[in-house]
Amino acid sequence: MSLVRVHNFSVSLDGFGTGEGQTLDAPFGHAGHRLHGWFFNTRAFRSMQGKDGGDFGVDDAMAATWADGIGAEIMGRNKFGPQRGPWEDHDWNGWWGEEPPFHTPVFVMTHHPRPSVEMKGGTTFHFVDGSPQEVLKQAKEAAGGLDVRLGGGPSTVRAFLAEDLVDHLHVVVVPILLGRGERLWDGLEGIEERFRIETVASPSGVTHVTFNRA
Amino acid sequence: MSLVRVHNFSVSLDGFGTGEGQTLDAPFGHAGHRLHGWFFNTRAFRSMQGKDGGDFGVDDAMAATWADGIGAEIMGRNKFGPQRGPWEDHDWNGWWGEEPPFHTPVFVMTHHPRPSVEMKGGTTFHFVDGSPQEVLKQAKEAAGGLDVRLGGGPSTVRAFLAEDLVDHLHVVVVPILLGRGERLWDGLEGIEERFRIETVASPSGVTHVTFNRA
Repeated sequence: MSLVRVHNFSVSLDGFGTGEGQTLDAPFGHAGHRLHGWFFNTRAFRSMQGKDGGDFGVDDAMAATWADGIGAEIMGRNKFGPQRGPWEDHDWNGWWGEEPPFHTPVFVMTHHPRPSVEMKGGTTFHFVDGSPQEVLKQAKEAAGGLDVRLGGGPSTVRAFLAEDLVDHLHVVVVPILLGRGERLWDGLEGIEERFRIETVASPSGVTHVTFNRA
Repeated sequence: MSLVRVHNFSVSLDGFGTGEGQTLDAPFGHAGHRLHGWFFNTRAFRSMQGKDGGDFGVDDAMAATWADGIGAEIMGRNKFGPQRGPWEDHDWNGWWGEEPPFHTPVFVMTHHPRPSVEMKGGTTFHFVDGSPQEVLKQAKEAAGGLDVRLGGGPSTVRAFLAEDLVDHLHVVVVPILLGRGERLWDGLEGIEERFRIETVASPSGVTHVTFNRA
């Protein structure tokens, strides 16, 4: 069975999955790199960047489950880039350079479709307008029986959680208070009843909370 | 030096310290007992209720630090009871029966002062109107050199945190999504910089996060 999985989704202690004021230079707005400091020196993250080395440990082990068995990704438009409204810059193809770390079809949810873009290394960005159910149907077809990764941002993950479309959710709670930005959890009262939840605190200071469909 | 300490303050994963709709029968509104299930079978909690037994373990050890070295408590009016506005029922003296577990002076913050009430076992409720700084001054005098416990609820803890009056904060994150109620963290951007923070996940499923003034 093909699952819908969220991995390595960092939130602040006050529940923000990204800060305020996204720009080209600040994908996470005023949060800067603070939500993802736990991630940077893991072997898993360095490997995504084509680098060797990095640390083993619980943060790395959790981070590394990101890749296995994934056949497609879905992301919100704000994860893809800082443009809003009709696309003005068609040369922008995400934060990840010429060879993004996805290596699968990636469905970017947007009300402004544009032609697909094939990148190096097997990543193809498709720009699709539709409900979570509709976009998921496309992604599952593209995944060819493998799982679909839901890549964020917060409002995209929240929309899929609200529609009960998520089978596995891995949230990383970072002990900072962002105060503003976009919340992950709004409007999701009671969803814990659908999941088995497990929590582990890492020596790095973050807490990994995993939700598996009950 | 006399410290201001918060202990055993439970919040949901989405940051609510209490639910919506407090009534006489539901001190935590629609949250019911869900924020405090981790607490009920600890030896510390049973001891507060004058009962024997209960479990040892990390939840108990954390809970038990509540009592030691405390000379006074400050609480918000909504922790004391469900009445709002001018006091109509002077017979109501809190949720805790004739012998509350505080055994010290307790300063209840309210815009509607009323005469102090002496309970069994050393607890005296004082009803005081004032800023966090003003009420803390009174409580520190009453504490006679011992520490002051800040008992909640969320808006009271938040107000003292915003004024940088809290030396130790112990928050218990419970993996439920309340969706509504009163948030602990609003408006506290960046306060983590004032603290050393430590996190431990308990086998019970909750996470203890302790903030110690840096």
